[in-house]
Amino acid sequence: MAQKPSIPKGTRDFGQQEMAERNYIFDTVRSVFRACGYAQIETPAQENLSTLLGKYGDEGDKLLFRILNSGDAFANVDQSKPLTPQVCEKGLRYDLTVPFARYVVQHQNELSFPFKRFQIQPVWRADRPQKGRYREFYQCDVDAIGSKSQLCELELIQIIDKVFAKLDINVLVKINNRKVLTGLAEICGFPDKVVDITVAIDKLDKIGLDAVKAEMMEKGLTEQAVSVLEPILTLSGNNDEKIAAMRSIMASSETGMKGLDELEELFGYIKAAGINTATEIDLSLARGLNYYTGAIFEVKALDWQIGSICGGGRYDNLTGIFGLPDMSGVGVSFGADRIYDVLKGLDKFPKDLRSSTRILFANMGQNELLYILPLVSSLRDAGVSVEIYPDSSKLKKQFDYADRKAIPFLSITGENEVAQGIVNIKNLESGEQRSFPKDDVKSMIEWMA
Amino acid sequence: MAQKPSIPKGTRDFGQQEMAERNYIFDTVRSVFRACGYAQIETPAQENLSTLLGKYGDEGDKLLFRILNSGDAFANVDQSKPLTPQVCEKGLRYDLTVPFARYVVQHQNELSFPFKRFQIQPVWRADRPQKGRYREFYQCDVDAIGSKSQLCELELIQIIDKVFAKLDINVLVKINNRKVLTGLAEICGFPDKVVDITVAIDKLDKIGLDAVKAEMMEKGLTEQAVSVLEPILTLSGNNDEKIAAMRSIMASSETGMKGLDELEELFGYIKAAGINTATEIDLSLARGLNYYTGAIFEVKALDWQIGSICGGGRYDNLTGIFGLPDMSGVGVSFGADRIYDVLKGLDKFPKDLRSSTRILFANMGQNELLYILPLVSSLRDAGVSVEIYPDSSKLKKQFDYADRKAIPFLSITGENEVAQGIVNIKNLESGEQRSFPKDDVKSMIEWMA
Repeated sequence: MAQKPSIPKGTRDFGQQEMAERNYIFDTVRSVFRACGYAQIETPAQENLSTLLGKYGDEGDKLLFRILNSGDAFANVDQSKPLTPQVCEKGLRYDLTVPFARYVVQHQNELSFPFKRFQIQPVWRADRPQKGRYREFYQCDVDAIGSKSQLCELELIQIIDKVFAKLDINVLVKINNRKVLTGLAEICGFPDKVVDITVAIDKLDKIGLDAVKAEMMEKGLTEQAVSVLEPILTLSGNNDEKIAAMRSIMASSETGMKGLDELEELFGYIKAAGINTATEIDLSLARGLNYYTGAIFEVKALDWQIGSICGGGRYDNLTGIFGLPDMSGVGVSFGADRIYDVLKGLDKFPKDLRSSTRILFANMGQNELLYILPLVSSLRDAGVSVEIYPDSSKLKKQFDYADRKAIPFLSITGENEVAQGIVNIKNLESGEQRSFPKDDVKSMIEWMA
Repeated sequence: MAQKPSIPKGTRDFGQQEMAERNYIFDTVRSVFRACGYAQIETPAQENLSTLLGKYGDEGDKLLFRILNSGDAFANVDQSKPLTPQVCEKGLRYDLTVPFARYVVQHQNELSFPFKRFQIQPVWRADRPQKGRYREFYQCDVDAIGSKSQLCELELIQIIDKVFAKLDINVLVKINNRKVLTGLAEICGFPDKVVDITVAIDKLDKIGLDAVKAEMMEKGLTEQAVSVLEPILTLSGNNDEKIAAMRSIMASSETGMKGLDELEELFGYIKAAGINTATEIDLSLARGLNYYTGAIFEVKALDWQIGSICGGGRYDNLTGIFGLPDMSGVGVSFGADRIYDVLKGLDKFPKDLRSSTRILFANMGQNELLYILPLVSSLRDAGVSVEIYPDSSKLKKQFDYADRKAIPFLSITGENEVAQGIVNIKNLESGEQRSFPKDDVKSMIEWMA
């Protein structure tokens, strides 16, 4: 009996239409990355588990896909010890950041720093599949490593601005700084409570000021500590005003003031560069808190309800674990699947993505084929995407093929046309039809443009 | 101690230069595939082992990379039975053909046939790594399924012709037909010796006619059988003459005559379509003999010593194993790594692939930065790839950066230029330098074009 074919859960096939739409996203980010001088790299799907393990927390280690050693993996195993580490030495890439860090360390002598790279490749996670969460998905990462300049942060915001302008998605860029969060924890006397404080602040919109204060005290902050933070919770005004207000509160924290310096410098650049996208300080922004050391970014779509569609930040010691200390970097990752959902939801994909084929030549028989073959070659040479229906089937079937592939032009060139040395082309949308001398490729192209 | 980073053997990192070169190959094949109306699809890296096993022979099954089941894979294993099948249900894609067959069967109701697809994705094989053989490599496959017309074969030859013309590689397309090989075996009375006969014919150039005849007899053919085949071994003339000669010998084999009909039809189309690439009947062409049922193709580079750089053929029942019988298809696969080696060897990569960045703005300090930021935005908006050096390092260091990245233009805009409202741009190759009014983006672009 024949097998019923299927694919592993959480994975996807992409057909013509989805590929065209996904390529539209990838091509857009790629063109913007290139316009800013970022170099594309690719790393292998498989990395040594020694590279991957311990980089994503215990939960991440569990979600790694492990590859069984090739040959007879179980030949010399010690049954009294855990088997997995004995039979698996490699795993599938879990994200693009750790492979990037590994790449930079491994190739440090070939690279010129600051090294600006982008990478668009799939990653794999053995997560429980659910709506919008897959076991294989693409990441689009762009990072600059080897400079502490806030110009790198600016450039990422310029990239975000340009990408979403090209995709016609209204977004808000939320900006935070890990050093400012450290400063908050320091000035209230609980330097080890950064995460608790940030998580509480994050709930301000939902649960209100009093509840946030109550939560902070539940987490062990004193009343006095909470009163120190209260002015931060009620910050208002534009970004400059917020920075100024925080300066007066945070003067006692050297780290906090450094963070405010960075924010101020960055917003100065943003103003000078003429960024159109709205940018906003958001102290509750806490993504990757154990990881980032400076700026933290998150991008929200304004007209479609969905999680962040792009995010990232600065990490001061990403490559340290691979033996290269003091390499500061900053990067963001574009979420292709969520961006896809936003474009679908807002119906913002360009309309002409559907078919790549411009004209179908119907198959009217052997003689007619020999007549049109040179023309088909000439049209393709001129950059027109052309198909010939391969079989001399009923015209209805050939029409249906053009229709299902959304091919806009059809040529039915039969024996009459061959006798007259002409070619008929029909615009399948308007119904309009025209005849051309067989060799007048130029006029045909103009008419189909 | 820090880990020394490395990647699994047989896998590769691709840096900026290699990526640009590889993308040049991928972009070229993709543009040609699209010009002929082929739709891009992508399938997941992981397939169920039930999809993959048994499709590549015993050797292939051994070379599959297996993925350890997630969760505790060893929780309920029966130690008395082989462990691998109990702990691995998925494997990494071994080629693009089997996933394509699986895709066609799984999505048959969404597709319009004939279905023309291309697919450019990596595949993984646990082969012993050696020069030119990797455990992860890209395949570029293009197939048409659902039509028996020789126009499909023609279209693949048109694609081959166009791809290698664009890449500027001189090639020879060798063409054979499995039905003709069957015919040969039939007319000499040994229909089960197709492989032996073909393997012997393949040695003609190397070992000569007598040795080939001797080998055939070693394999069990009678003297009389060999004498029937002898005129085939000494075939000469052009493709039409070869076909005509074979017709007179092969009249008693229906399958053989059908194969000759197909070859004759195909060469008729090739002539009509004006294919420039040399095409040649080669009866020793035996790739995938257990697999192909009609045309067999192989492409050789004429000016560089290397194995075939593209190949494929027609298979009449690829999807049968997944429950969809009578789907005839034909396709070829372009070997990106070998094509890369040929382009490198012949020094045929375009010279301008190296840097994507057109101009670097040196970092002369805070004031100057604020002065150039709007200009940088305008240049990028106009499609120019621009970088600003992020740190105000010594000019020597900034120069070196431009040099190592092969950036052709440099702007050093200091306080004098700011005072005058101008921008200086230097052509780093010619040494020529020019000043522009700060806002005259158009002239800058023209000068750098």
